Amino acid sequence: MYRYRLTIEYHGGPFHGFQAQDGLPSVQGVLEAAITGFSKESPRVFVAGRTDTGVHATAQVIHFDLAREFPPGEVRDAMNFYMREKGVSVLDAALAAPGFHARFSAMGRRYRYRILDRRSPPALEAGRVWWCKIPLDAEAMQDAASALIGTHDFTTFRDMQCQASGPVKTLDTVVVVRDGPEILLDFAARSFLHRQVRSMTGALAAVGAGRWNRAKLVAALEARDRQRCAPVAPAHGLYLTGVVYDE
Amino acid sequence: MYRYRLTIEYHGGPFHGFQAQDGLPSVQGVLEAAITGFSKESPRVFVAGRTDTGVHATAQVIHFDLAREFPPGEVRDAMNFYMREKGVSVLDAALAAPGFHARFSAMGRRYRYRILDRRSPPALEAGRVWWCKIPLDAEAMQDAASALIGTHDFTTFRDMQCQASGPVKTLDTVVVVRDGPEILLDFAARSFLHRQVRSMTGALAAVGAGRWNRAKLVAALEARDRQRCAPVAPAHGLYLTGVVYDE
Repeated sequence: MYRYRLTIEYHGGPFHGFQAQDGLPSVQGVLEAAITGFSKESPRVFVAGRTDTGVHATAQVIHFDLAREFPPGEVRDAMNFYMREKGVSVLDAALAAPGFHARFSAMGRRYRYRILDRRSPPALEAGRVWWCKIPLDAEAMQDAASALIGTHDFTTFRDMQCQASGPVKTLDTVVVVRDGPEILLDFAARSFLHRQVRSMTGALAAVGAGRWNRAKLVAALEARDRQRCAPVAPAHGLYLTGVVYDE
Repeated sequence: MYRYRLTIEYHGGPFHGFQAQDGLPSVQGVLEAAITGFSKESPRVFVAGRTDTGVHATAQVIHFDLAREFPPGEVRDAMNFYMREKGVSVLDAALAAPGFHARFSAMGRRYRYRILDRRSPPALEAGRVWWCKIPLDAEAMQDAASALIGTHDFTTFRDMQCQASGPVKTLDTVVVVRDGPEILLDFAARSFLHRQVRSMTGALAAVGAGRWNRAKLVAALEARDRQRCAPVAPAHGLYLTGVVYDE
């Protein structure tokens, strides 16, 4: 068997998340149909970080196995041919090193969250940013965000449906910067709990709007109580921007 | 009468251009319906730069007259309410100075053209960039573009349907820069001929791909012959990014 490793980009809008579900459009479904289209084989696709309905990716990583060896560039171009107009694009394809696993070999994940904080709704960026009508204080958000860095019990910022074995995670970095009319939040960790980035972003936006402050964020974190979280930020502002492997 | 001046943003995808045409969706149609919605008046909307089907705008300027005076912020918010989910957003509204005319008072227009030159098709930026499979040489494009600056007969880069009184225009600036996976082309002039920006971009992309060079671009310009133009760049990579007034 030959193992193929792909970096892919997708717009989350048309999909009910990454994972294939009966009868619902999924990124996995589009990918598996394209693989079958060019190879006539039906492997299962494994992904570095499953994304929820509406969440985008600029550099997601997947792997799958085929009995036949294809030049990686041919895999990329053939899949893009079968996926045209479907909202998924293969950026890069390679034969994977022995033992490589898109999910279990990953040493880190990076996410970006985009907030457009202005009075007028987005026309050009609709479905790609979270529109907050109130101007947000990016510096206050960065200051509060630094309290989340490190190893914590993130129960407050964890979806009730999360299937991770425990609530303790290590957040490596959070960077909050203003970029013209937008605020960008970049998160990096080995792994995240379900909806952790959107939950943290919701709380940081509350800080930026002045409804919360750093002390309230710290108290919410320390309470380890999902009820203490601010409203979760919507899916369509979130992007999986990278997966890190030790190579 | 009170004259209102608005800066607006729109995604060109849903529209058959700016101008209202019987039975076809247009930016003008959406704007005029929103104005009537909140004011119960039916003024005509005047625009700084009409855009073709599929062309976007980040800072288009319009004006219209109403018998009644409204606070400008109320005009902005009321129109955005009536236009929600329609792909048009009012960024700013103001009462205009006497004699102001969105089109005739304009001293300059700015356009940006976005090219994504990579092997893989866009998933996230589909409909927002021109996808060129071949890598383009931005420096060669900038060098050739400088030959277009100044006052010229732009017949080669003018659509046959252009209704301007003559083919002579003054191009003030063209800046071509690489921005990660994209090449951005920024154009500024007092005014442009119909499809001039897309025609010039098509020729500059030919230079970037190595099919044309600067000498061929200059010869095409000097020929004043529409048949000498390279294929015109598609509408969905073009953005009207600003209108300049003398105030």
